[in-house]
Amino acid sequence: MQPIDFYRSEFISYMESKFVLKEPVNLYEPINYILKLGGKRLRPVLALLSAEIFDGSYKNALDAALAIEVFHNFSLVHDDIMDAAPVRRGQATVHEKWDTNTGILSGDAMLICAYQLFENYDAATFRDLAKLFSTTALQVCEGQQYDVDFESREDVTLREYLKMIEYKTAVLVAAAMKMGGIVANTSPQNQEHIYNFGLNLGIAFQLQDDYLDVFGDPETFGKQVGGDIIENKKTILFIKAVESGSASFKKELLDLYSIQPGDPAGKIEAVQAIFRESGAAEATRIDIESFTQKAFLILNDLDITNSKKEILRQFGENLMRRTV
Amino acid sequence: MQPIDFYRSEFISYMESKFVLKEPVNLYEPINYILKLGGKRLRPVLALLSAEIFDGSYKNALDAALAIEVFHNFSLVHDDIMDAAPVRRGQATVHEKWDTNTGILSGDAMLICAYQLFENYDAATFRDLAKLFSTTALQVCEGQQYDVDFESREDVTLREYLKMIEYKTAVLVAAAMKMGGIVANTSPQNQEHIYNFGLNLGIAFQLQDDYLDVFGDPETFGKQVGGDIIENKKTILFIKAVESGSASFKKELLDLYSIQPGDPAGKIEAVQAIFRESGAAEATRIDIESFTQKAFLILNDLDITNSKKEILRQFGENLMRRTV
Repeated sequence: MQPIDFYRSEFISYMESKFVLKEPVNLYEPINYILKLGGKRLRPVLALLSAEIFDGSYKNALDAALAIEVFHNFSLVHDDIMDAAPVRRGQATVHEKWDTNTGILSGDAMLICAYQLFENYDAATFRDLAKLFSTTALQVCEGQQYDVDFESREDVTLREYLKMIEYKTAVLVAAAMKMGGIVANTSPQNQEHIYNFGLNLGIAFQLQDDYLDVFGDPETFGKQVGGDIIENKKTILFIKAVESGSASFKKELLDLYSIQPGDPAGKIEAVQAIFRESGAAEATRIDIESFTQKAFLILNDLDITNSKKEILRQFGENLMRRTV
Repeated sequence: MQPIDFYRSEFISYMESKFVLKEPVNLYEPINYILKLGGKRLRPVLALLSAEIFDGSYKNALDAALAIEVFHNFSLVHDDIMDAAPVRRGQATVHEKWDTNTGILSGDAMLICAYQLFENYDAATFRDLAKLFSTTALQVCEGQQYDVDFESREDVTLREYLKMIEYKTAVLVAAAMKMGGIVANTSPQNQEHIYNFGLNLGIAFQLQDDYLDVFGDPETFGKQVGGDIIENKKTILFIKAVESGSASFKKELLDLYSIQPGDPAGKIEAVQAIFRESGAAEATRIDIESFTQKAFLILNDLDITNSKKEILRQFGENLMRRTV
């Protein structure tokens, strides 16, 4: 096993060797651009780490890891069009730098390129990887659709919200880890357990993202604190405040979520206060902790050495300790 | 072997049994809508026909045929967004009936669903089909990009144009036929020959589409005759007129292609005259015939009975005899 930074830099070198500019340049240039914008490379690193956890070589997992990262970036390109987002990781989004049509078509090509990355594996592994990939990719689309649907609904339940973030975010983390297991030829039981480890950690990670968006440290949080409140996004905090808060909290919150003031500072403070006083903030922290612990409990079921379980636990703890 | 109409109706029944409405409905309803809009079902029918040509059963080819048809419709949904086209087969396009975001996301889901349709095949067949599918799908994206690029270029050569229509249109026809061969487990040689038969027939078909758009019978041609001229589309007729016509034809044509008159009748007639008098019309007819004959010549190389070669030739002749 190697430190996480080693896997990350190996992955980035591999990616840069695979994505060189091809004809037609107007199709492939935006693909290279988005892939080089950076990011934590969390999913591909997890795929490589997982392969080594199951006694495989991270080198055999590079193509699967790259497929996951290319798919993730495909979904960012298309989501950014749908959200009309001008900026991604501090740089212009693809549809902003080029145009919407370029974003659509380059995104389509990325989705196909992701599948092609499985072609170097033997036929049985290819099918296992591609099947898992298709199931996961379709869930990500469904999660995105639920997210869109929820924007125009007032009655989204906690259960529905959790399913949405599971599909939109967590299944890809889970699939990345399972792919590492598939490539390393580990048992179906281990594959299932590592998938569920990734799934629960992915849900905890996304809930924490919701939490930090409201209560994060502006000095260290990568995005604007209060961004979700400004956009009236119904995150877990909103749902919990509506579900478990009093009628007056609910009314006040719905009123605040119906306005878009020029200076949002007052609105952000008022919503933060409701999230705190309604118990939504504390309840969310408990949920984050609970999904994290659920992930760690699954480690007991894995048929790997204790020192490897400890590596996964450490990774999870570092991930959840982040303030950014 | 069965008549073509039999394969078409079997295919449509199969498609309707596979695409039932699922949650989230806002994602899957547009998919069912576009798949049921109709069309000739040329590509899936060719996949089924090809399977039986190589002594397989069309039933084994239904999933591959459906994957091809789902992909074809995916490309229509995304292309219609890019072209801002309001109507497809006499009905509202997906982005027009719903919105652009729905068109993007439902299209993405269709591309993934297409891959899933290969999952019922054994691992080796799965890989053969998925690899061919990815190569083809990426070529279709590249062809679409070349088509977009050509809009803003004055110097597109005949060679470039032929490559564009090969990628955008013909490779999918070729892949459909090869998939029939893969499913029927025919030899690699037969697979290659049937691919090239489909490729040349597909190019001939697309060139004929360009020709009929200008010189078709308004009574029987499905689209508006002169549509390409109204939109200043640089089809093979335009390229041939510019390449082989005199300097005065070229200047007159470029002038006509720089205007968009309210009543296009005069412009259409003038362009038709240039296409005829410059020899572009006749040269295009020769090219159509030449690609068709090239396809028929390949039949000699196929290791199948003469009566089956005759079926393929009849199919090709019917296709090229169309006036619609």
